[in-house]
Amino acid sequence: MAEADRLKSVLRGTTLHDASRRENSAEHSWHVALHALVLAEHAARPVDAGRVVTMLLLHDLVEIDAGDNPIHGVSDPAKQEAEEKAAADRIFALLPPDQSRHLRALWDEFEAAETDDAIFAKSIDRVQPVLSNLATGGGSWPEYRVTRDQLETRVGAKVSRGAPAIWDGIKARIDAWFAGRGA
Amino acid sequence: MAEADRLKSVLRGTTLHDASRRENSAEHSWHVALHALVLAEHAARPVDAGRVVTMLLLHDLVEIDAGDNPIHGVSDPAKQEAEEKAAADRIFALLPPDQSRHLRALWDEFEAAETDDAIFAKSIDRVQPVLSNLATGGGSWPEYRVTRDQLETRVGAKVSRGAPAIWDGIKARIDAWFAGRGA
Ligand SMILES: [Ca+2]
Repeated sequence: MAEADRLKSVLRGTTLHDASRRENSAEHSWHVALHALVLAEHAARPVDAGRVVTMLLLHDLVEIDAGDNPIHGVSDPAKQEAEEKAAADRIFALLPPDQSRHLRALWDEFEAAETDDAIFAKSIDRVQPVLSNLATGGGSWPEYRVTRDQLETRVGAKVSRGAPAIWDGIKARIDAWFAGRGA
Repeated sequence: MAEADRLKSVLRGTTLHDASRRENSAEHSWHVALHALVLAEHAARPVDAGRVVTMLLLHDLVEIDAGDNPIHGVSDPAKQEAEEKAAADRIFALLPPDQSRHLRALWDEFEAAETDDAIFAKSIDRVQPVLSNLATGGGSWPEYRVTRDQLETRVGAKVSRGAPAIWDGIKARIDAWFAGRGA
């Protein structure tokens, strides 16, 4: 658990809502878990909120070794996946065997994104930065030159898979932001 | 949920393990929730880890209004309690009525510290800063001039109530730290 402290120093592409500094992955993990609690009723299919929250608390622990890969940044998905698997091997092995197996299984389930709980957890993980960016007047979108179409394909498709009502609900706000920039 | 972003700017008395900066309450909430997941088997009585984790994700939201009150700092408990209740009234009211009721009830349960889940959650909330301070060579203890006896009465008693095995397990490390300072 001392190891987990290091996630507080992994900086992400998004900033706090007051734009004072970049968010770190520990804060992000807390915030997405909280979103999952509040938004669980909007899941495409019934989910176990406790399992979803646990997945979200764990999901970014691998960034202690593998770093954060901004969704709108340039990256090599195969290399990233290999690095994250290696990180999971190392980090979960620090726990007693029972918990290691249990929590690693949840991490694998999240990554595979096949169960209802994992699909919804992925949706929440994807939507939280969008909500943050909307709250900060576009946030990191200008920096990464994000287009409306990219948001739809990189984020919208994944959010809609687990939580279509949530994506529908924020689409109008995204459109308004892009309209305001004449894009 | 945008409101919750502000918890990332509430600084605590404890620092990160690399002592580079003070920890904020959002990071702390994530870290204690993770501890609860891993340590649930050490609870004094059987607990529902999902409920405990949820309580811990929520427990410090009131600090958005009421601020952090370091356990070893000087404070007025009655005033603090009133401020936190007022904060809970305001913050939980931002949610839709169903979730507001459900999550506020969990927050009240945590504060009352009467159920097994809440007693264990309180133990984990108290023990995480101790583990952080041990990991940083005493951390904020020198600053607050904390004595071994104060740790036992302010922290040990509460940790032991919900998780005696955990307190027993770190007592030796606490003793060693104080012995090393000739205290
Ligand atoms: Ca994430």
